[in-house]
Amino acid sequence: MTRQSEEPIFDVAQIVHVEVLSPTPKETVAFYTDMLGMEIVDQVEEKTYLRAYEDSYKYSLIVTEAEEAGLGHVAWRTTSPQALERRVKALEQSGYGLGWSEEEYGQGPAYQFTTPDGHKMEVLWEVEYYECDEDKRSKLLSRSQKRPLKGVPVRRLDHINLMSSNPEADTNFLVETLGFKIREQIKDNDHVIGTWNSVSNLVHEIAFMQEPNGVKGKLHHVCYWYGIPQNLYDAADILKDYGHFIEIPPNKHGVSQAFCMYAYEPGGNRVELFGDAGYLIMDPDWKTITWQMKDVPGNGDTWIGAVFPDSFWTYGTPAPATVPLKVAAE
Amino acid sequence: MTRQSEEPIFDVAQIVHVEVLSPTPKETVAFYTDMLGMEIVDQVEEKTYLRAYEDSYKYSLIVTEAEEAGLGHVAWRTTSPQALERRVKALEQSGYGLGWSEEEYGQGPAYQFTTPDGHKMEVLWEVEYYECDEDKRSKLLSRSQKRPLKGVPVRRLDHINLMSSNPEADTNFLVETLGFKIREQIKDNDHVIGTWNSVSNLVHEIAFMQEPNGVKGKLHHVCYWYGIPQNLYDAADILKDYGHFIEIPPNKHGVSQAFCMYAYEPGGNRVELFGDAGYLIMDPDWKTITWQMKDVPGNGDTWIGAVFPDSFWTYGTPAPATVPLKVAAE
Amino acid sequence: MTRQSEEPIFDVAQIVHVEVLSPTPKETVAFYTDMLGMEIVDQVEEKTYLRAYEDSYKYSLIVTEAEEAGLGHVAWRTTSPQALERRVKALEQSGYGLGWSEEEYGQGPAYQFTTPDGHKMEVLWEVEYYECDEDKRSKLLSRSQKRPLKGVPVRRLDHINLMSSNPEADTNFLVETLGFKIREQIKDNDHVIGTWNSVSNLVHEIAFMQEPNGVKGKLHHVCYWYGIPQNLYDAADILKDYGHFIEIPPNKHGVSQAFCMYAYEPGGNRVELFGDAGYLIMDPDWKTITWQMKDVPGNGDTWIGAVFPDSFWTYGTPAPATVPLKVAAE
Amino acid sequence: MTRQSEEPIFDVAQIVHVEVLSPTPKETVAFYTDMLGMEIVDQVEEKTYLRAYEDSYKYSLIVTEAEEAGLGHVAWRTTSPQALERRVKALEQSGYGLGWSEEEYGQGPAYQFTTPDGHKMEVLWEVEYYECDEDKRSKLLSRSQKRPLKGVPVRRLDHINLMSSNPEADTNFLVETLGFKIREQIKDNDHVIGTWNSVSNLVHEIAFMQEPNGVKGKLHHVCYWYGIPQNLYDAADILKDYGHFIEIPPNKHGVSQAFCMYAYEPGGNRVELFGDAGYLIMDPDWKTITWQMKDVPGNGDTWIGAVFPDSFWTYGTPAPATVPLKVAAE
Repeated sequence: MTRQSEEPIFDVAQIVHVEVLSPTPKETVAFYTDMLGMEIVDQVEEKTYLRAYEDSYKYSLIVTEAEEAGLGHVAWRTTSPQALERRVKALEQSGYGLGWSEEEYGQGPAYQFTTPDGHKMEVLWEVEYYECDEDKRSKLLSRSQKRPLKGVPVRRLDHINLMSSNPEADTNFLVETLGFKIREQIKDNDHVIGTWNSVSNLVHEIAFMQEPNGVKGKLHHVCYWYGIPQNLYDAADILKDYGHFIEIPPNKHGVSQAFCMYAYEPGGNRVELFGDAGYLIMDPDWKTITWQMKDVPGNGDTWIGAVFPDSFWTYGTPAPATVPLKVAAE
Repeated sequence: MTRQSEEPIFDVAQIVHVEVLSPTPKETVAFYTDMLGMEIVDQVEEKTYLRAYEDSYKYSLIVTEAEEAGLGHVAWRTTSPQALERRVKALEQSGYGLGWSEEEYGQGPAYQFTTPDGHKMEVLWEVEYYECDEDKRSKLLSRSQKRPLKGVPVRRLDHINLMSSNPEADTNFLVETLGFKIREQIKDNDHVIGTWNSVSNLVHEIAFMQEPNGVKGKLHHVCYWYGIPQNLYDAADILKDYGHFIEIPPNKHGVSQAFCMYAYEPGGNRVELFGDAGYLIMDPDWKTITWQMKDVPGNGDTWIGAVFPDSFWTYGTPAPATVPLKVAAE
Repeated sequence: MTRQSEEPIFDVAQIVHVEVLSPTPKETVAFYTDMLGMEIVDQVEEKTYLRAYEDSYKYSLIVTEAEEAGLGHVAWRTTSPQALERRVKALEQSGYGLGWSEEEYGQGPAYQFTTPDGHKMEVLWEVEYYECDEDKRSKLLSRSQKRPLKGVPVRRLDHINLMSSNPEADTNFLVETLGFKIREQIKDNDHVIGTWNSVSNLVHEIAFMQEPNGVKGKLHHVCYWYGIPQNLYDAADILKDYGHFIEIPPNKHGVSQAFCMYAYEPGGNRVELFGDAGYLIMDPDWKTITWQMKDVPGNGDTWIGAVFPDSFWTYGTPAPATVPLKVAAE
Repeated sequence: MTRQSEEPIFDVAQIVHVEVLSPTPKETVAFYTDMLGMEIVDQVEEKTYLRAYEDSYKYSLIVTEAEEAGLGHVAWRTTSPQALERRVKALEQSGYGLGWSEEEYGQGPAYQFTTPDGHKMEVLWEVEYYECDEDKRSKLLSRSQKRPLKGVPVRRLDHINLMSSNPEADTNFLVETLGFKIREQIKDNDHVIGTWNSVSNLVHEIAFMQEPNGVKGKLHHVCYWYGIPQNLYDAADILKDYGHFIEIPPNKHGVSQAFCMYAYEPGGNRVELFGDAGYLIMDPDWKTITWQMKDVPGNGDTWIGAVFPDSFWTYGTPAPATVPLKVAAE
């Protein structure tokens, strides 16, 4: 039935975890635990598994020791086992499928693939839930465990932003294979500079941004969520006091309307923190919002004042040998 | 294929508008415009159409003159035209269908029905979008119009809460006909006292709560959303200064984790204001959270201190002649 | 010159520290360190000295082991050595002077006295400043040390509130001997129920409230300050999650306009937390604001909704054997 | 008695009003009323008198039509009539006294003078209090009138910042004649670039900053106070939406720790808004905090990220013909 094929795809539900690479894994993990209040779930060889206190599953972040900072992989969960079958079929047909992974920590079988730009991803259905010890259980039943007493604790993984040599191609790939919808985009005339894409009511679980030198496969940032705007100032206050580099102080994004800030963790990867949800998209017939790049500074980047520094548009990981954060943190 | 039938239904996307009845429509409209910064879109006979500044469609609230306060109807939008057909079929089969409505203001054909308890509802696909005058257009492209300069302006319609003589029956009806998922519920032993249900990542677009005397079809409240916790204090400050009744001051709900407050508009209907999104449900395999009523006070109602007053559990509209707000506002 | 004698007295500058008694000093200290992020400066016999991270002096709180909870003493600093001499003379003339104290930890000579109700106090000039270790030093030069990474850390001591068998007598005593000004008061017809008094631009460094049974010398609460309203919700969130009793959730006081909350520490003493400064009094010719008790509930206690529970008006320390917090925390 | 002369002076209590000049008074007044919710008290010839809703006196701002933007004058209130006499004597001796003013609107006799740099000031005791109409009276007794329903209303005048060809000279003049204390200062090696000075517990009622070209008598900004950090984002949101120039988005100052933002009103004068009190100085023996200019960017200007733009250090009113705000607002 032709009409059925025109209906939206509801097969992918969410981002479940992100693996980041770090040349200084101990310091990177300490950043997430001491500053952002995350907890170490387990450590297996060169991988440390971490979670935020309202993450539902066993972990949402893997910090893996590596020579260079950057993205390990991103994992997506489908809305059902059947949806997983359908998405694997679409990925196989795309030519970017890599096959089913061997057994991975805390989850069932995952089908691996890359974006056209080479970012590693996987899609899965089965995932292990976090089991809370009795003494850490909160009376707040939707909270996976008591709020930690360390740092300014983040609540859950929010989204990923990847740099790409061709954001349009990567975006279309996810639209076609996984059913993502393009919520907002930035164009320079006709050239797509960035896209914000979601399978949920969020404006994005994944964004792609133009890598200015055409380098492939870079990570722009991982984002964790607070839900409370003021918490960004509390987080920024301790990041500043303990010598971490804040690239962009708390402000309201034009794109997505989220209340955001950006810092670099010691391994060199950029981290975003979200102070609120921005706006949510309930409209099932959403028309992609298109910004022209010339209108972005002072409107689309930060809605309220102070345009983004150049580093926001150019820095990703892995980064060239001389990273700006060393200079900037001084 | 049996497995297909087990997959979740994604046919309903969102709440699009609510009609409330008011014996004092002028004062009710003034409450929404002067205090909550909403704008009058149109007035047609005894109906005033209003919208919040980030609502996408032409209106989200209808205030209709009537002898008593209460619910007019609630409208739901499907995710596609085909989804509408499927839901209408299910509603027809349920025995609660009323048939297609005659032409309504600002929307296409709507199929009308009631809950088992008698609350009027409709489901539709076509809806008229808000067209912003050039001089009211914001540079923030996801904002439907410039932020109003009156009161403490709400951003969009969030959800509805209905009192029911049988919350379990009403909930199951929506689960079966429209594909709602039960996100949280309160039980008194086995008896269902309240349910919070959604078709989106929100914890609820609709809740049902036990009407203590078995009266049918009552409205508990309509909720508008700010997204910024502090805004509730600003709103409460003006509501207080201008003599409106605040039933429950800003606090974090246990159920839903939303930052909320409750007031009564001059017509007698309860209004909730949301200061943040609470938590969002991304997990596609969500298990309904069940509170026992004995654990609710001081945990499930307000997470942080001060249990809800009795009026929260007993007052709905239409209300008996002697409404508590007269006393309480003094 | 007679006119000179009519000029205001500017001899007392501030509250410098408070000593509280606790039957469970270890748990009381843990409350202040783990929940409120205070640091232990020293422990000398049965006294633990603590400070908040923006306190200027060596300590602002002494927790002293004792059979019952309650007030140890309150210390005031004068605006100059000469001012100290003048105040000691006035105290000696009042008949409530006790004489100069022997050497005390972290301060110079202090003249001790009691209020008519028997609360112990002292007034002093010399006080030891906090010396920050190099690695704990903040680049924010007005911050005494880096912001701690534990709990939701309070910034500085704000004020004390004492229950009195005769608030009017205690207030007049401080007005006459130390130059306090009465900023706001609550009266039941002509009877003074409570007073809020300051020597600075704050509405109060000390309040007196009627003890309902005429018991003398009780402590109502000690208050620490955040300056950021949202921080009260963060603090309340962890107090709740870790089983502490929140008597009154975050709300705006009518009296003082401060954004406040109340909890009990494990020793039984009430603790207030301040989320903002309320209003400041710059007017040198301030006329005391007088509330009638009948207007207080819902206006003077919490400005926005929810009147104070009875415990606020009746519970102080030392408390009768059966304290309400045991029941209430359940 | 020599010791007496060493005691601090407590003769000046507060800033009572500021007069600003505007070439576009209508637009300037509209900025203050429509955006910042201030109310017009009166209009007398080319002067419009305005007040914020928690200002105690009849007005706190005078907008005066003039050819160029800039400062009209600043008025200070003493702590007593006797204090006024003493300060007038000191001003007369300084050589900067101008004599007693003729009758002014809403106040008693004022002694006029200039700073060495030529900024006009006056000092007075008698001032007319705001009389609130019955229907505008708030039940919150320390609030001068109900909170306005327009814009994001500021609460009270906070401070003034003046550019000076010689900040050190201007500062010393106020220290010696009026008893101001230097709370913080910025030096470039030994040269004083800026000072923050107060007579109260605030870090400043007046700051002086180096005018880079040695021009005399300029205004840097006037500051109004909210007391609630989030309100700055609400204010910034409407300023942005209605086309006003935001020079510096909300951030925490290093100097003073205040949560601040800067915008330009249509007449060209810079306006600061304060979201909290920063820290308060209770210590009677305060040692001036000294920043070296090289440490200021990223620490002393905004504590959390993003250094101040050049315009902050160079732009004051009157400004050269080509003001940056025209360009920047685009």
